[in-house]
Amino acid sequence: MLNVAIIGASGYTGVELARILCNHPQVCLTAATSRQYAGIPLSEVFPNLRGKTDLICENLSVPELCARADLFFAAVPHKTAMDLVPQLLEKGKKVVDLSADFRLRDVTVYEEWYQKHSSPEFIKEAVYGLPERYRSQIRDARLVANPGCYPTSIVLALAPLLEKGIIDPTTIIIDSKSGTTGAGRSAAVGTLFCEVHDGFKAYKVGGIHRHLPEIEQELSAASGSKVTISFTPHLLPISRGILSTSYATLTDPISADTIRGLYQDTYQKESFVRVLPENCFPATQHVRGSNFCDIGFAIDRRSNRIITISTIDNIVKGAAGQAVQNMNLMCGFAEETGLGGAPFFP
Amino acid sequence: MLNVAIIGASGYTGVELARILCNHPQVCLTAATSRQYAGIPLSEVFPNLRGKTDLICENLSVPELCARADLFFAAVPHKTAMDLVPQLLEKGKKVVDLSADFRLRDVTVYEEWYQKHSSPEFIKEAVYGLPERYRSQIRDARLVANPGCYPTSIVLALAPLLEKGIIDPTTIIIDSKSGTTGAGRSAAVGTLFCEVHDGFKAYKVGGIHRHLPEIEQELSAASGSKVTISFTPHLLPISRGILSTSYATLTDPISADTIRGLYQDTYQKESFVRVLPENCFPATQHVRGSNFCDIGFAIDRRSNRIITISTIDNIVKGAAGQAVQNMNLMCGFAEETGLGGAPFFP
Amino acid sequence: MLNVAIIGASGYTGVELARILCNHPQVCLTAATSRQYAGIPLSEVFPNLRGKTDLICENLSVPELCARADLFFAAVPHKTAMDLVPQLLEKGKKVVDLSADFRLRDVTVYEEWYQKHSSPEFIKEAVYGLPERYRSQIRDARLVANPGCYPTSIVLALAPLLEKGIIDPTTIIIDSKSGTTGAGRSAAVGTLFCEVHDGFKAYKVGGIHRHLPEIEQELSAASGSKVTISFTPHLLPISRGILSTSYATLTDPISADTIRGLYQDTYQKESFVRVLPENCFPATQHVRGSNFCDIGFAIDRRSNRIITISTIDNIVKGAAGQAVQNMNLMCGFAEETGLGGAPFFP
Amino acid sequence: MLNVAIIGASGYTGVELARILCNHPQVCLTAATSRQYAGIPLSEVFPNLRGKTDLICENLSVPELCARADLFFAAVPHKTAMDLVPQLLEKGKKVVDLSADFRLRDVTVYEEWYQKHSSPEFIKEAVYGLPERYRSQIRDARLVANPGCYPTSIVLALAPLLEKGIIDPTTIIIDSKSGTTGAGRSAAVGTLFCEVHDGFKAYKVGGIHRHLPEIEQELSAASGSKVTISFTPHLLPISRGILSTSYATLTDPISADTIRGLYQDTYQKESFVRVLPENCFPATQHVRGSNFCDIGFAIDRRSNRIITISTIDNIVKGAAGQAVQNMNLMCGFAEETGLGGAPFFP
Repeated sequence: MLNVAIIGASGYTGVELARILCNHPQVCLTAATSRQYAGIPLSEVFPNLRGKTDLICENLSVPELCARADLFFAAVPHKTAMDLVPQLLEKGKKVVDLSADFRLRDVTVYEEWYQKHSSPEFIKEAVYGLPERYRSQIRDARLVANPGCYPTSIVLALAPLLEKGIIDPTTIIIDSKSGTTGAGRSAAVGTLFCEVHDGFKAYKVGGIHRHLPEIEQELSAASGSKVTISFTPHLLPISRGILSTSYATLTDPISADTIRGLYQDTYQKESFVRVLPENCFPATQHVRGSNFCDIGFAIDRRSNRIITISTIDNIVKGAAGQAVQNMNLMCGFAEETGLGGAPFFP
Repeated sequence: MLNVAIIGASGYTGVELARILCNHPQVCLTAATSRQYAGIPLSEVFPNLRGKTDLICENLSVPELCARADLFFAAVPHKTAMDLVPQLLEKGKKVVDLSADFRLRDVTVYEEWYQKHSSPEFIKEAVYGLPERYRSQIRDARLVANPGCYPTSIVLALAPLLEKGIIDPTTIIIDSKSGTTGAGRSAAVGTLFCEVHDGFKAYKVGGIHRHLPEIEQELSAASGSKVTISFTPHLLPISRGILSTSYATLTDPISADTIRGLYQDTYQKESFVRVLPENCFPATQHVRGSNFCDIGFAIDRRSNRIITISTIDNIVKGAAGQAVQNMNLMCGFAEETGLGGAPFFP
Repeated sequence: MLNVAIIGASGYTGVELARILCNHPQVCLTAATSRQYAGIPLSEVFPNLRGKTDLICENLSVPELCARADLFFAAVPHKTAMDLVPQLLEKGKKVVDLSADFRLRDVTVYEEWYQKHSSPEFIKEAVYGLPERYRSQIRDARLVANPGCYPTSIVLALAPLLEKGIIDPTTIIIDSKSGTTGAGRSAAVGTLFCEVHDGFKAYKVGGIHRHLPEIEQELSAASGSKVTISFTPHLLPISRGILSTSYATLTDPISADTIRGLYQDTYQKESFVRVLPENCFPATQHVRGSNFCDIGFAIDRRSNRIITISTIDNIVKGAAGQAVQNMNLMCGFAEETGLGGAPFFP
Repeated sequence: MLNVAIIGASGYTGVELARILCNHPQVCLTAATSRQYAGIPLSEVFPNLRGKTDLICENLSVPELCARADLFFAAVPHKTAMDLVPQLLEKGKKVVDLSADFRLRDVTVYEEWYQKHSSPEFIKEAVYGLPERYRSQIRDARLVANPGCYPTSIVLALAPLLEKGIIDPTTIIIDSKSGTTGAGRSAAVGTLFCEVHDGFKAYKVGGIHRHLPEIEQELSAASGSKVTISFTPHLLPISRGILSTSYATLTDPISADTIRGLYQDTYQKESFVRVLPENCFPATQHVRGSNFCDIGFAIDRRSNRIITISTIDNIVKGAAGQAVQNMNLMCGFAEETGLGGAPFFP
């Protein structure tokens, strides 16, 4: 049994990590930190966990935690993570960092979109934790930068097309929609029930969302040249789920069958990517609570564009589930362990 | 007082027409037809109307109805409308047709996307009922083809940009999201609460939604040349509301202020279009229950694209409200009559 | 035109008051106060109001406001209201107070459930603002205590039965369910979208909700003797709406027709109470956005109990709409003015 | 591995059974019947199951199915079940019947509330499948009548109080609220998204819901004498979840601690019942997707009543999960097998 801890357990990613880890047969969750709820049982903060864990939320003390766990999930905000993670690594621990602090390989890009980076020397060794693209490096990593939720949904859909030169990288437009868990669990008027319910809006319009450089980094890597995209996120009145609709111009005439074959070849051995058959398109409610990414597409002959549609549960494959998938790889467990449940519908 | 009737009153457009007309000071709603509910009080079919109307749903009999009303709202499916509308016109009645049957000026386009047209001779005289673009023709019309919900949200946002040549018409991509009232009130598994709630999906992907030729017709008219778009509709787990996110490449460098000025000039005298200030973007919940169309935009300098975002309540400005606005014009009432209520929030 | 002002405009009651007053033909809304948003246009705080009002939120200054308005809606928390209202009255103004501070006629009961009362001398002159029961007193009042949302839904359903001695007052159990607007617009984790959505819970269980003494006061008045009830509120994942299910034992055998007749007689002249026919029961979605209270009932012969079900929109008939209804009475306007819109469904 | 089959797989109970059984380590799901979808992969009917099962929906043929499975989940409507179940038993199969046909021990009561019973001789051997109350009989049964969703939530909360004589059985009033999965997956206007969303209503008011005799049967068994209740169900705009609020008069003064102790003693060895601590009350979102029943209560000293609040996921503990729990008992598996996942929140 591997002892693991969650640093920053009081958010939606934290509770989902706890939910998954409680039922993981090869790990023991030994600690959960939360400044706000220190001293309070985690199952009181999140009553869904009642009977599943006896952990008491505690303040963060690196030395103390390091005596009790060998792998850490850092579910703290960016900036906090860049100071914390090196301390854990220096104690010889493995870390899956769910913040943005080690995702961007180019520190100048990071500093342009976020702030000064205090631990740039660790960026180099961090592995971008998208197993479908970096599996072997993740297996050997001691620091995995767990991808953002939007990037996960987008990169899995577009990377195969870019690698094969099927789409023109200058034409990519991505229209994403996220459930409200993505906005976090802080008290704020903007995410009150009555503000979000029965409504829909865009936010961070005009290419200013911080997931943008991360998406471009990974699409550029797939393309082999720098990719610049348009990316617009929207807020859905649902709890869990991201659906990304991506548009790009085809470089050459190509059949839908060829593209479907490409997707199937790419993902045939993947446990968590489902390529949908013809005329089927993903819906967030069909991946709810699971680690799946569903991908569908159509070719619009009239405009010579391909439209890809991909869905994930943003706090599973987009956060906690992918983090556990990464842990499984880092620790030599079967990759699917603890993540095998079917999506729950309805 | 003008006597008016609703033909096809048992759908969501029908009940919204009744709601608005009940409170309209210059009309008297004298009949509501519904094959399915004939003989049943309209306020039993829609208990929100209890105490607001005594009408009994009745079967459609053109001669009988024509004795009781002078203007008709035809809220029947396409195909049914093309047979019905000429009968009403021949009796000297005015008609606002909410189906698609008289929206497309080119009958061959209609027949390509729908079916054979039985009354092509009436297409010519029909006026496309978007008052912000065809006000004077509507005033003189006896047949107004009430626009589709998606087209209304899109044309109001993009036509000004196309008219001025600000965007490249070959680059337009429109990602629209609609509330579930848009799917109608027929019993169907796909629109059951448990199928739609807490979920999100795309549909009619790949340029196959029937509103597409209507959008292209109106954008082409604004542009002065044939426009081909990509258009992808999605289904939102809300009752009312459409939000359309449109992307297009700028033809020349232009400031946001210039574009805002253009929108303000275009819509300054319009009662139902609200151009949002800088850094404000529309949300469906802020137009709920009203006849407003809210428009916001941002320029993405990184990709040289403009992103416009527009919202309407799909059964008000996208259907029943716009139909009443058209009626007001056709009958010489003040255009805002009966439509002045502020949106309901939350 | 009557000049009116809203004190405390930044909550959900405030925005609903503004929405209704904007369209009221006999009043002019001249001020809206909000400490938090002072200096910001009300239509920026609530973008649904864009184009409907130019008011800027301002800090509260009684002398200044009194120069600009003759009737005030006090939509501030209890305790704040008891200090504010006397100042307005002393300036000769009329006040509709939406807090609890002047609802309870017995100051000792108030002080038991709330806190020390600083202005007990005004309790006596305050009229409980339920027009269906206190219309003539409201007409003459300068201070109206607008009822709580739960009490409104309950008293309208049960008072007629108690007045006629049809139910045993010792057996009354009330199970109420409220939409989340009732929880206010303060930032709080418990009312975040993700906490409320797709869920349901009870709160203040065991007879501890502060609306309880208000309900008992009004039911006792109807009964003629002290009534003690059980009252349990629940939180619904909807924005607007209260449904109260009330249970009581019948004192004597009685037919459903007799009871229906009693309700119809009681409310036949009321504009805002709809007594439903046999086998019809209210639904919150059928009063949404309106000032209606719908009442239905059934007799359970097996247990000799009557079950009444009543619905209101908690921020209209349960708050802002009823406040305007009271204002109409206090100022000699037709009681329905500004409140005539049909509920919006769906 | 035990081979099992689902008869009637196309409803919400069917898909939930499939979801649970797919991940159950000791069973193999070998068949799923559906008249409507015969020939279509189950994972096409329910895309959440894609990649989790290859089953094709098939028509029901008892002989053929009996060659492929040893235990059957009958998820067909009542009436259908009473004809089907005996055929399976006669082939030596075990059956968990999710219909109402074998729940009521008194056939005259069944025939009063449903219709003529064609197989009354099997009622006697059927065991009521509430493991917390009939565990040993279930272990030995070949026919288990899986309880209704409302009864499950209610009996677990009230039976301990009745057994100890703590409440007066003549005073029980139960106000239940259910998610919309309880209404089934048939196409019907009344359960369309737009009819249910953002709304709330009661139904089957006045003691006419068919779960009533089942509840009374089990409460009477606990009480030792005939219990007559008032029971009112309501429809919640959520997918999953039942919350039952029950009211009863205390027979004698008793402390909350004593009652809590009684609940804890009763359920301390139960895996799926969570007795909440003082001042904690259940919420449906905290049992979502799990087999838990959460129970909380408060004593209302003012009215001398106890209010119990209990929650389940209506399609898990209220249907599919409890059916699997019963199967585990019937087949000698550990009772929690396949049901150990924590609830999903949010």
